[in-house]
Order: sequence, then C-alpha cells, then structure tokens
Amino acid sequence: MPAIQVKTASAKYPVLVGSGILPTLYRRLPKRNHVFVLTSPEIWALWSKRFLASFPKDIQPSVLFLPAGEQHKRLIHVERLASELASAGADRSSLLVAFGGGIIGDMGGFLAAIYMRGIDYIQMPSTLLAQVDSSVGGKTGANLAVGKNLIGSFHHPLAVYADIDLLQTLSTRELRAGLFESIKAGVIRDARLFRFMEQNVAAILKREGKALEYVIAASIRMKANVVGIDERESGLRMILNFGHTIGHAIEAATHYRKLLHGEAIAWGMIAALHLGRTRGTISPAQADRVECAIFSYGPLPVFNTTTAKLLEATSHDKKNREGKRRFVLPNSIGNASVVEDVTDAELTAAIDWMLAKVRKS
Amino acid sequence: MPAIQVKTASAKYPVLVGSGILPTLYRRLPKRNHVFVLTSPEIWALWSKRFLASFPKDIQPSVLFLPAGEQHKRLIHVERLASELASAGADRSSLLVAFGGGIIGDMGGFLAAIYMRGIDYIQMPSTLLAQVDSSVGGKTGANLAVGKNLIGSFHHPLAVYADIDLLQTLSTRELRAGLFESIKAGVIRDARLFRFMEQNVAAILKREGKALEYVIAASIRMKANVVGIDERESGLRMILNFGHTIGHAIEAATHYRKLLHGEAIAWGMIAALHLGRTRGTISPAQADRVECAIFSYGPLPVFNTTTAKLLEATSHDKKNREGKRRFVLPNSIGNASVVEDVTDAELTAAIDWMLAKVRKS
Repeated sequence: MPAIQVKTASAKYPVLVGSGILPTLYRRLPKRNHVFVLTSPEIWALWSKRFLASFPKDIQPSVLFLPAGEQHKRLIHVERLASELASAGADRSSLLVAFGGGIIGDMGGFLAAIYMRGIDYIQMPSTLLAQVDSSVGGKTGANLAVGKNLIGSFHHPLAVYADIDLLQTLSTRELRAGLFESIKAGVIRDARLFRFMEQNVAAILKREGKALEYVIAASIRMKANVVGIDERESGLRMILNFGHTIGHAIEAATHYRKLLHGEAIAWGMIAALHLGRTRGTISPAQADRVECAIFSYGPLPVFNTTTAKLLEATSHDKKNREGKRRFVLPNSIGNASVVEDVTDAELTAAIDWMLAKVRKS
Repeated sequence: MPAIQVKTASAKYPVLVGSGILPTLYRRLPKRNHVFVLTSPEIWALWSKRFLASFPKDIQPSVLFLPAGEQHKRLIHVERLASELASAGADRSSLLVAFGGGIIGDMGGFLAAIYMRGIDYIQMPSTLLAQVDSSVGGKTGANLAVGKNLIGSFHHPLAVYADIDLLQTLSTRELRAGLFESIKAGVIRDARLFRFMEQNVAAILKREGKALEYVIAASIRMKANVVGIDERESGLRMILNFGHTIGHAIEAATHYRKLLHGEAIAWGMIAALHLGRTRGTISPAQADRVECAIFSYGPLPVFNTTTAKLLEATSHDKKNREGKRRFVLPNSIGNASVVEDVTDAELTAAIDWMLAKVRKS
C-alpha cells in the first residue's frame, strides 16, 4: 500500500492510500486512553459497524457528530463540540479521529487545534475530495458569515488514512467533484497525472481500484511535495489555489448551495485557463485540452449570477495582500505560477467567457 | 529601558518594560497597511488620545471593542471580532494590537491566531496581571461554559510593550491582584524577587516607578526563561501553575464573579503551601513566610463554597493527563516542582485549611 510522507518544517506524517484500511484502523492508531471520533450521521450510518469492529470491546471510541453541509462549518459548532469533549473528559492526551468529508476534516482538525490549545488527531477522509486534497497539508478551519475558511489554524494530523473502499458509496456527483481537484493537481504540477486522467476517464469513473488509487496517490504526492516546500503558503503553496479565486467567488455568489466545492473549482479553472490563454502564458491548444478533460468528467451544474457579483466576491480572497490581488495562472500542463498584476478587465473577460459556457451547458 | 528577550523553539521577541512607551507606540510597530486595535471601552476612554497621538494623521488604526468581564471571553465574540476584521478588509498582512488587560490579551492573541489561519499581533498590556504574566508566553484563548481557557492556541506576539504608566489608573484591588502573580514568580523560581517583594511592600503598593519596574521586569524575566525552556508546557512550564489548581477551582465555584484571577491564585497558593508543608517539601517557616507576604499585599476577598465543590472542580484541570492529577508543590522559596501523586485526602486537607483562613478573614 503506498504510504506518502508529508514532511514540513513543523511536522512529519504518513498518508496511507489503499484498500482495507478501515477494518484495521484500531491497531494503526497510537495508544491513547480516550479516542474520539468526529463524523457525520450519514457516514456513521454507512460505516460505523466496520469502524467499531476494529476496536477492542472494552476500548470503544466516543462519537461526536456534525451535521452535513457547509452551513454547519461554523464556530458555534466548534464551541458545542469542544464542550462535548470537555464534558466527556477529553484531556491533552486524548486523540480525535476526523472521519468524513472535507467539512468534517476541516472542522475536526480545527477542533483538535484549539481544544486545550491543541490535541493530536487523525484524518480519515471518506470522500474523494477530502482524500486528494483537504485532508493533507494541515489547513483546518471554519467559515464566517462573510466568507469561507476565514477562521482556522495550521495543525497537521498524526497520519492520514485514505481508504479507497469508502469511495464505493460516494454519489457519482461527489466522485466527479473530487476528480476536478485531481485534474487541478495534474495541471499545476504533474503532467503525467493529467495525461492519465485524460486517457482513463471510463476506468476512473467506474471506480476501478487501480485507476482510482493511482489518481489519489499522485494527487496526494503532488500536494505533499508542495506543502513540504512551503508549509505556510508564503509562496509556492499558493499554486494549489488554481481555479480557486473565481471558484470561491462562484461558491459565495451561489451561497454555497448550488455547487459542490470541486464543481465550483472546475468552473474557476475554465475561467483561469481563459485568462492564461489570453495572456499567452498557456498555449490555446493546451488550454483547450485541459478544458476538454474537465468536461469529460462532467456534467458541470449550471448556476445563475453576474460578472459584477463574481468580480466583487474575488476582492475578499485570503491570498490578497496589502490590497493586491493574487492569481494562479497556468503556464503549461504541469506548471503554474502566481501573479499579482491581473487587472479587473482581465478578470471580467475571463468570467464573461466562463459564464457564456455556463449558459451553453 | 529593560528589554527582555523571549526565545522559544518557534518564536523570538522582545518584552519592553518601562515608562513612556505609549506616546512612542507607532514608531515601534512594524510598518503595515492596516493596523487594528482590540481594546475595552474603559481602557479606550482613558488612553485613546495618547494612543492615537503617536499615529500619523493619515494612518489611523481601526478600533475593535470587547466589553470588560470574563463572560465576554467566548467564541461568539471571537466570531464577531473576526467578522469585523473581514468587513474592514483585514488581510494576512494586517497587524493587531491587543491593548488592555488579560482578557483583551488572551482574546486578541487568539483572534490573531485564527483569523485567516494567523496574523501578526502586538501585546500592549494595561494591567499589572497582564504585564507580569498573561501577555508573555504565547498562550491565547477563550472560555467554554464548562471551563476556563479550554479553547485556545499557542501564538506568540511580535513584541510585548509593558508601559508602567498605564498602571497609574489601575484600581488598588487590580494592582494587588497582579502582585500575587509576582509573588508566585518569586516563590517558584526567583528568591531575590520574593525577598524584594517582602521588603518593599509600601513602595510597591504606592506604585513607585523603580520598585514597580523591578517587580515587573523580574516577573517577566522568570516567565521568559521558563517559556524558553518549555514552550508547550510539556514539563517545566507547568510550575507557572503554582496555586492555579485550587485557584481555578475557586474561580469556577464562584462563577468567576467574586474574585479577580490573581486573588483566587493567592488563595490557591495558600492551599498549595499547606500541602507542601504537610508533605514536608517546604519547611513550615518558609511556608509561613510566603503566606505572610501574600497577606501583606491583601486584603483577600472572602467567598462562600465547600471543600467538596472545590475538589470536584479540580478534576477538570487542563494539566491533568490520562486521568492523573498534576499539582505544583513548593520546595523552598525560589523552587517548585510538579507531582502526579497528590491524593484526594491531601487536597481535601489543603482546601479545608484554606477555607478556615477564608472564614477567619
């Protein structure tokens, strides 16, 4: 089973990718007096039996729940969950397992980061998006009403266990949404992964074990490499945000209700590709190829908004510094860079172009 | 002006102690596009003119408020303050100045720790307690309904500016409360500071500049040294909690309303001294001397509770690990250590003894 090492200035931990991890979970965990699991009711309904079966009868974990949905990724739930930890006697030596999708991972990591100023935790991502992206790299957080992920900490897990068997119960739509982040991984830094995804659409969408494992492991390897070089996003790590400036704006403008995160990023990449195509940082042929690959993992849901609204929403981007907008441009397939000089006119043109595609979809 | 260096595994910063810092604040700050101040309405009413006077007319800071009182040290206010930061356009390069007492410092530090996963901040403590203790060492946090400081982060400031002129408007009660933490500093690690406080009660209570500066600088030097050796409280740093096991229990049992933090710690030290006296880790003569010094900075407010309630409240202490209670015992004046084998019977006897003193006060 491939184990990928994440090695940053402040942490070192393995990401395990493969089949059959869940039934052997307990013996993989560090020995602690008290283990807590944060999960969603839906995931727990599907997997609790197998999850608990790996634990000895006399050492069962305590279970905390967070309802599904972006609207629950808020401090009020962090407070409730922390109170539940305290009431159940959690101390600094307790262990938390975040078992679920990206929201569970982000919230579980943040809860672990701030409960008693930090306890250990494990990421056990159950969606493709969480496996290929959010569970790796130590970013944790919650939303504010005024913006997504505006609250958070860098807090790395002790380990990430990405069991691909969990993906068998994922809806097709969620699977596709995760695959868009893997396309992103290929476009910004791994041409081989991109080519593999171009050429194996059917096998990947059919969730064939080997194809899926390759895509997930390659995506994680790319991210582990980037995070190892730039843990705190002072430079290189920003390229992971390819498609995210406009993607986040779409999510905000549609109130996080119409699109899954990966779907918004897919549209955001289409806009960013157009910006790169117009500037000439990426050749039209390569930009078309990427766009084609994105649509081959579609359909992408449509949405209703205006260029003005999306443009306004990009001004709150966390990457911005001292009033300067930061934007990730594709250079060629497998290469991207961060620029600070994207104008409103360029963004407007890119958004217009994307919205025309939305209307045609 | 004495500048004490804090040097830990993750940070290095100066603590400036002395007179006349506030009027020269602006030129001491790193240059940033946007400076925010978190303060209380009371502190701002007293000092805003002098605070703002140091800023150029065209570069004024944005002011955020947190009402005074432990009941506001909660995540709901963190959320409100973070939303205000976001709405005012704060980004990762913004600077926050926490200007006020311990609660402002803890909440400001925590806000800076988690806003956009961490921005820079400055501690500008306005109370003695905050100057000698809470502003130094990077502990930040908020309370849960079930317990104090159960939520938080380690996040060091870029600098601490302890202007002793700010202490002139402090109430006598708050001054005394802060001095108990300095007595603690002497008892656990600085016999010379303890002796100075024993011998200069009048000068210190009269707030004579030199005496006050000596006490504050020595207290900070002690804390900086301990934090430099053990940043994350895995060992030595726990001695800073001398008097805090029972002190926190008193605060919880009196719902944080009757006593100031320093006052509760003073009572907690009296109980801990008795435990040490009974065990023989500290000589009766030395224990009496410390008790005497504490009362010389009194009066200590009385309160109403039972031994059983206090004993129960100690079981939620953050220092506890795997069900074991950790307790800081005084060895001699200037020396303390952490033990794990304090029994309920010993704690009961110590609390009984302290409550007898409370009733006699």
